[in-house]
Amino acid sequence: MPNPTAAMLVIGDEILSGRTRDANMYHLAGKLTEAGIDLVEVRVVSDDALAIIAAVKSLSAAFDTVFTSGGIGPTHDDITADCIATAFDDHIDVRDDARALLQAHYDKNGQELNEARLRMARIPDSATLIDNPVSIAPGFTVQNVHVMAGVPSVFQAMVASVLPTLTGGAPLLSETLRIDRGEGDIAGPLGELATEYSDLSIGSYPFQKDGKYGANIVIRGQNAERIASAMTELKGVFST
Amino acid sequence: MPNPTAAMLVIGDEILSGRTRDANMYHLAGKLTEAGIDLVEVRVVSDDALAIIAAVKSLSAAFDTVFTSGGIGPTHDDITADCIATAFDDHIDVRDDARALLQAHYDKNGQELNEARLRMARIPDSATLIDNPVSIAPGFTVQNVHVMAGVPSVFQAMVASVLPTLTGGAPLLSETLRIDRGEGDIAGPLGELATEYSDLSIGSYPFQKDGKYGANIVIRGQNAERIASAMTELKGVFST
Repeated sequence: MPNPTAAMLVIGDEILSGRTRDANMYHLAGKLTEAGIDLVEVRVVSDDALAIIAAVKSLSAAFDTVFTSGGIGPTHDDITADCIATAFDDHIDVRDDARALLQAHYDKNGQELNEARLRMARIPDSATLIDNPVSIAPGFTVQNVHVMAGVPSVFQAMVASVLPTLTGGAPLLSETLRIDRGEGDIAGPLGELATEYSDLSIGSYPFQKDGKYGANIVIRGQNAERIASAMTELKGVFST
Repeated sequence: MPNPTAAMLVIGDEILSGRTRDANMYHLAGKLTEAGIDLVEVRVVSDDALAIIAAVKSLSAAFDTVFTSGGIGPTHDDITADCIATAFDDHIDVRDDARALLQAHYDKNGQELNEARLRMARIPDSATLIDNPVSIAPGFTVQNVHVMAGVPSVFQAMVASVLPTLTGGAPLLSETLRIDRGEGDIAGPLGELATEYSDLSIGSYPFQKDGKYGANIVIRGQNAERIASAMTELKGVFST
């Protein structure tokens, strides 16, 4: 049975303007691979309601699971929760369960649960909350979409909260061989190996270091024996 | 007049499996912002022909300019050029101008222009070549799509070759103020400022450092005076 599929939607002008380098995609990609869930597409869109709504609808329809990152804080530019409600034609307002979490948190810290912070309790009616052990304000899940924060430490905590609730497949295994020759020298035999092992994914990732060319050959699949066999053959071809 | 719009398509299993952290998006985003071109969407898809073709068609139709990254090397998993040809219903084969570039390069280095390397001269009929001063094998442009390498040093060189050929708009200017208070404390006044300066984009990017919360407030726009005015007001509000 093929693995479940996933997509990620990164929401934020700061990524598209080059101000911030996204860290969440890399984190999620690694965690999903471990869990046996295939991350098939990532989209990055700006803090624009129509763009967010269209992307959520499209990805939710096309993949088993969708993860979003960003735009669920207390400031005016945090519009993700409202966009999710619109995308799923759901009602949204401050919800008692989310408000109670925030109230307890701010009471404990002697801070006021003001109007801005209360925005973080705006959750669509049909959603279930995602635990946020870092800063309490919850993420939430509507249908197959998990809505999570953009701050990396909070995003990572929410991923850890969500992942055990998902059914994964067979973890994707991989082995890598670094070959210090240009891709043009290795492409022929590599293509033949890829044809022979068509049940595996054999990727070549070229690099240039100190003026010399090389490539990392990554063999991926779910069957450790097949990967080991292909790797033995690969080493045999390029040991000379 | 609004700035031209752009999208980026990152092609590569290695990003989606979490093996490699993408560096090209961050680079391109910064360069486009300097040039006054608005990067509106980024998509990452795997080395899958149907996914690449669909994404290229969709992004090419929706935005003024599209940049792709990855999958134009000599190995079996480099399928981008063929996908671009399919997307634009164009014929593709080894082209004499690209072959001549490669032949001269490999002759000079005493290497053979073998069948694998010749794959890098496969260019759609209607394309113009993109100069690659790093490793010679050219990128290419079909209609509004610029097809570039995934290796960061080569990608960056190709971006430098393409950018001067594009018409940009007014560069996006920005100023940042770091405020060492949680977003919940600053969201109210910040929202009022955003309403007052609705011609500017005012973003709040929260962070957590050493257990304390803060936010970088970024004011973006094309009018330096308006940005300065908003920044003065912002500092006034949060100086107390």
